[in-house]
Amino acid sequence: MMDRETFDEWYHEIVETAELCDKRYPVKGMNIWRPYGWKIMQNIDALIRKEMQQTGHDEVYFPLLIPESYFQKEADHIKGFSQEVYWVTHAGDNELEERLLLRPTSETALYSIFSLWIRSHADLPLKTFQIVNTFRYETKMTKAFIRVREIHFFEAHTCHADFEDAERQIQEDLNIAHSFLSSLSLPFLVSKRPDWDKFAGAAYSIGLDVLMPSLKTLQVGSIHQYKQNFSEPFNITYEGLDGAHHYCHQTTYGMSERVLGAVVGVHGDEKGIKLPASVAPIHVVIIPIIFKGWEEKIGKECRAVKDELQQLGIRCHVDEREKTPGNKFYDWELKGVPLRIEIGPKDMQQGTVTLVTRDGIKKQVGRNDLEVIEEELRQYDRRIHDEADAFLKEHLHICTTPVKKEGIIELPWCGKEVCGLALEEELDMKSLGTPIPEKECHEKCAVCKERATTWLRLARTY
Amino acid sequence: MMDRETFDEWYHEIVETAELCDKRYPVKGMNIWRPYGWKIMQNIDALIRKEMQQTGHDEVYFPLLIPESYFQKEADHIKGFSQEVYWVTHAGDNELEERLLLRPTSETALYSIFSLWIRSHADLPLKTFQIVNTFRYETKMTKAFIRVREIHFFEAHTCHADFEDAERQIQEDLNIAHSFLSSLSLPFLVSKRPDWDKFAGAAYSIGLDVLMPSLKTLQVGSIHQYKQNFSEPFNITYEGLDGAHHYCHQTTYGMSERVLGAVVGVHGDEKGIKLPASVAPIHVVIIPIIFKGWEEKIGKECRAVKDELQQLGIRCHVDEREKTPGNKFYDWELKGVPLRIEIGPKDMQQGTVTLVTRDGIKKQVGRNDLEVIEEELRQYDRRIHDEADAFLKEHLHICTTPVKKEGIIELPWCGKEVCGLALEEELDMKSLGTPIPEKECHEKCAVCKERATTWLRLARTY
Repeated sequence: MMDRETFDEWYHEIVETAELCDKRYPVKGMNIWRPYGWKIMQNIDALIRKEMQQTGHDEVYFPLLIPESYFQKEADHIKGFSQEVYWVTHAGDNELEERLLLRPTSETALYSIFSLWIRSHADLPLKTFQIVNTFRYETKMTKAFIRVREIHFFEAHTCHADFEDAERQIQEDLNIAHSFLSSLSLPFLVSKRPDWDKFAGAAYSIGLDVLMPSLKTLQVGSIHQYKQNFSEPFNITYEGLDGAHHYCHQTTYGMSERVLGAVVGVHGDEKGIKLPASVAPIHVVIIPIIFKGWEEKIGKECRAVKDELQQLGIRCHVDEREKTPGNKFYDWELKGVPLRIEIGPKDMQQGTVTLVTRDGIKKQVGRNDLEVIEEELRQYDRRIHDEADAFLKEHLHICTTPVKKEGIIELPWCGKEVCGLALEEELDMKSLGTPIPEKECHEKCAVCKERATTWLRLARTY
Repeated sequence: MMDRETFDEWYHEIVETAELCDKRYPVKGMNIWRPYGWKIMQNIDALIRKEMQQTGHDEVYFPLLIPESYFQKEADHIKGFSQEVYWVTHAGDNELEERLLLRPTSETALYSIFSLWIRSHADLPLKTFQIVNTFRYETKMTKAFIRVREIHFFEAHTCHADFEDAERQIQEDLNIAHSFLSSLSLPFLVSKRPDWDKFAGAAYSIGLDVLMPSLKTLQVGSIHQYKQNFSEPFNITYEGLDGAHHYCHQTTYGMSERVLGAVVGVHGDEKGIKLPASVAPIHVVIIPIIFKGWEEKIGKECRAVKDELQQLGIRCHVDEREKTPGNKFYDWELKGVPLRIEIGPKDMQQGTVTLVTRDGIKKQVGRNDLEVIEEELRQYDRRIHDEADAFLKEHLHICTTPVKKEGIIELPWCGKEVCGLALEEELDMKSLGTPIPEKECHEKCAVCKERATTWLRLARTY
């Protein structure tokens, strides 16, 4: 685990030295995805797509540009985003008749069309998602993958006949989040955001937060219950079995490239990043340990091992560059490759290969036992998950009175905004919200001392 | 093959009835990708990615927004695009210090960074590509996939030490084009565009054209030799073995969602679209032919066949909707599914299934011989290719004097612009350019009667 004090500086540098992105693009907050980083992000997207497919969501792609009049249909939504949107006002030399905005999120683009797609209860539930670029004119300091102005974004949008079915969707989203984030070895907390911090237009919002080594939390996903807040202004109705027209209930589930930021931060160490095998572009790097006279033999052996591993579906690379093995180790540890295989004369003689995991376990494996690598990768993913989970648990402090502690503090809360904001001020933290699943409370509110109905989680946040 | 006169109308409708896109989005020329269309496009992208990977291109992702000052570095490029770009001028309530444009293509975004990535000859060749949304404010009539204002775009960008290496790249691109378009069963012509129609900033341009049933050609790809036209203004240099700094030579290769437009148009017939198996989201639709008392048995058999085909890697769907078989046939023919399997009581008794290909071949296949389906799909792809190829050849007219013919006309040409433009005017056609590979000519120019050095291809174009 990284040092808390130096983490942000480490993060700032590692995203470039590990060749994930290039921050030298001449527009602030817009970075270039380098091949290695983009490959990881595509692997993350593939995991999301698998989850979506298994739960019957259809992938769509809606236009980037939204007419101003559509954007303005839901009042809270405008208020929440109006200071953050980029405006297209001209095309060629012409001023446009109506200004267009770059989607900061796609509710107002999708929902005018959902009203055409949905006619009767037979069209429900409608479950869609898209993976797109979105844009937010962030005024806070930007940070690669975590706070950027062009965002690689995932958004699921669903429509339902009634509130209960929308609530079932939110349960499904929570299951998806669990499956997806676990496959990235990311432990996380689920909190119902306080009313003063819900999404612009939502009835309520749920946040998915991970804990970074800086002991600040990072929201990596959010799930929103819209009830009929959007379906009314966008006129999304269906004809029910009763022959009458009803407004749909809607939900959304959003994630972004922040997930990659979390992977980088949560699993990083002083050597570099540590990629979960689930998304690593290279699972195993094979490094020849060359001694004079052995060059050809060992090179051949490395390529043979590579071929065998590829047969097993393992993504492999032989590093035959003109560098010392030590320098190669350094490069691939920096880039977070889960497993390294070293093959030298001794291995050849013994009929073994030397295996070193990114988290530092070294062992000999029989040359004919390469199929164990699959299990080694699974165990590695589990270990980095468990390490992060222990860190999260260690820094989740359940208290009865506000004490200044590093990490996440959970305090008894009466539910009143004024008490929540008082805690935020006293602790110099932000509210993450109340635990999901709900957690009983038999204490007194940490502020007003009245009966606490729930717990409020607070933390410093990105 | 479609009727020539009614093709454009047919196309206009089929893109929506086959559920590829929805044209009701409230910004002109920006359509919604529906799940079925988007899946096909993603399969097309996967074919491109495979070609790129096999030829050592790295995938990157650059920001959408380009500062005006970068866009203005190459004079011809500005001239070519300035009337077509969308301008972002405001963010929130603020006017931006510098206007940003939505990329119409990404030269000016990439090349300022290439100048940082390339230091020495060891960094060359640099071979990259990206698949992104681009924007062009088209003033001509828009047409789904063919002329749209938000374009799903593929662009490869390469840098080389010298002109010869850049020329080798162009040969590689031509090989990629051949492999890629063949896998979509699309026959095409390769032509070196005349100087007056080359890409804005290019030394020369090559166009890849298919012939649509309307007998108009559609450019589905283009390859450009830039020489040092961009590397000079963007200062992309490398230190050579001689210790001196040299400007790189550059090429690009672009394609777009037009490829899908070509698939729709070239292979369409009066029943709907015909998808090549290579990109069809569903290879085989299985339709139960239900008779009273057989419901359960046949349903079970259909699902068993599906499971077996999926084991073979074939994308399958059982249509168990409450509709007549005839209505189901209609739906899936419309959507271009390559193969249909019908299973009825007679098939069950005989131990067969009934196979009907989208191009109308019907046969019985033994229930235990399902592995022949793979070969059936290959043969189907080949047949639809050959049919389109015969159509292209039939309408490629090699003449010595300008005669009004439908399709593509190839005429002896002296190479002078004035003669080329005279032919365009006389035939009411546009020049596609000269054949690649080069074709000898021993005739006299169809206009000036001087010695013709080559052939000029002309056609009506989209």
